[in-house]
Amino acid sequence: MKALIFDRELRLEEVPFPTRLPGTSLVKVNLAGICNTDIEITKGYMNFHGILGHELLGTVIESDSNSLSGKRVTTEINIPCKTCDLCQKGLFKHCRNIRTVGIADYPGVFAEYAVLPDENLHEIPESVSDEKAVFIEPLAAAVNALESADFLRDDKVCLIGDGKLGLLISMVLSANGIKHQLIGKHKERLEFLETGKVSFTGIEDAKTIDRYFDIVFEATGNPGGLAQALSIVRPKGRIVLKSTYEGFPSVDMTRVVVREIELIGSRCGPFDKAISLLERGLVDPTPLIAKTFHISRAYEAFEAARTSLKVILRMERF
Amino acid sequence: MKALIFDRELRLEEVPFPTRLPGTSLVKVNLAGICNTDIEITKGYMNFHGILGHELLGTVIESDSNSLSGKRVTTEINIPCKTCDLCQKGLFKHCRNIRTVGIADYPGVFAEYAVLPDENLHEIPESVSDEKAVFIEPLAAAVNALESADFLRDDKVCLIGDGKLGLLISMVLSANGIKHQLIGKHKERLEFLETGKVSFTGIEDAKTIDRYFDIVFEATGNPGGLAQALSIVRPKGRIVLKSTYEGFPSVDMTRVVVREIELIGSRCGPFDKAISLLERGLVDPTPLIAKTFHISRAYEAFEAARTSLKVILRMERF
Repeated sequence: MKALIFDRELRLEEVPFPTRLPGTSLVKVNLAGICNTDIEITKGYMNFHGILGHELLGTVIESDSNSLSGKRVTTEINIPCKTCDLCQKGLFKHCRNIRTVGIADYPGVFAEYAVLPDENLHEIPESVSDEKAVFIEPLAAAVNALESADFLRDDKVCLIGDGKLGLLISMVLSANGIKHQLIGKHKERLEFLETGKVSFTGIEDAKTIDRYFDIVFEATGNPGGLAQALSIVRPKGRIVLKSTYEGFPSVDMTRVVVREIELIGSRCGPFDKAISLLERGLVDPTPLIAKTFHISRAYEAFEAARTSLKVILRMERF
Repeated sequence: MKALIFDRELRLEEVPFPTRLPGTSLVKVNLAGICNTDIEITKGYMNFHGILGHELLGTVIESDSNSLSGKRVTTEINIPCKTCDLCQKGLFKHCRNIRTVGIADYPGVFAEYAVLPDENLHEIPESVSDEKAVFIEPLAAAVNALESADFLRDDKVCLIGDGKLGLLISMVLSANGIKHQLIGKHKERLEFLETGKVSFTGIEDAKTIDRYFDIVFEATGNPGGLAQALSIVRPKGRIVLKSTYEGFPSVDMTRVVVREIELIGSRCGPFDKAISLLERGLVDPTPLIAKTFHISRAYEAFEAARTSLKVILRMERF
């Protein structure tokens, strides 16, 4: 089968058909989203070698589980060992021996077929289109960011970053009725967002905001965004960090201490809640799709993903 | 009167007697503690110029308040404006126009006399000695660190740093019945701490601990301590930051995100609780006193404070 491998370089190759083991399902991949993490991996992140990709919409074509056979599904990405001390504490996504689909020790979904653990698979309700469903993994991460923030009524909320994840966080904030300020680089992306809930400030103008917000979401992935978050959060306010950084950024930790700020890291999130947001029509992420490429054009797709919003790989020709 | 001034350099000088205004008391300073913040100020921190010092034990010799006259007191250091938006939210210690005794826009207590707002003064109970009372300000900060941590029963707790503030945090942990691991450089300082509550690990040995502690207090004030805290806290664990850093340290923020760690800054604390700990005999910080100097030997005292535990300035000769 065709698969997009990363092994020091990206290679589109014919690879052996994967073997299904008990407790796993064989999934025919329909759509797969390219995430910034995939791009980071091609720069060396996680030292991963193998089939890339973890944002999936597929169809189960072989499974021991009757409830899964034939179903449209997406997959959770963390595969915990369930025996280490952290799993015993219920911290499955932080398992000491974790494998992560397309990121660590487990083959990804940029391929015609993937074998995935049954318990990682979530059935997609009929009313949710393929194009929406392929966003479930990052949408769940956006939901987790909100849940990490521990909102109080009337909190003033700011979101820094209008990239893919920032826009999903904005959508989830709006879906929860939370008004927010978006600080970003692309005012035109406001059209994807819910009027009335979001107001936009360009990065330059935002420099004049001082110690104002109760909660700030940092979704830029660059040290400048973090510095900005520290400058606009109020004392005893909270910053939710929802993007990884290249290297170790320099951070004004003295400000964190003197202003008693809380920094909260946030990673993967609850798939059931993301699916529910799509099913109830509260979030529509499809305007974020910049382009869809057939897997035979994967190199081109990766180039496009570096500079645009969501790029989708499609396994079959239209 | 004699006072220790910082104005680009430390100078022990004769300065004019301070003027008492309504709502303030004139306090004769008996003892004053040298804090790391004072040392940082002599390196340029806060760009402060004036009389240094904020850890006080004194006697009120003139006041409009009958309840204060003649009393032994210590002082809270933050003087908020009470009118800005942050004060209106009750965030007095984060006032936008804050003045801080001996740190920002207000003269300190390394002097024979100080004029301080009545409402900043706390009477010292008779049973608490002068030498204990001079620790109330940093002890309150240690109490605040604990309160920031949001303990759960059976949490595994680690404290990094066995300097002045680290040892006070250890004492407050023990006073609250919380067992903890202390990672430090000075095993001999264990003798100041409560046997049975603290176990000691040298910095080198601590490198093998991985993702273990639910709560970590970082009280080293150096980036190495923060890196260590990040390596030993469990996923979704909490790090309380209770020391400021020179410059902007490089921090592995990706680890914060991926492991969903919380970083919580902590600053000044509740004086009433610190006084209560001393009054009930639950904490005795006096073993931390390395040396007491008369103010006439202030330069020598500052030199000693750079390398030893608590150094106290005494305004009268023995």
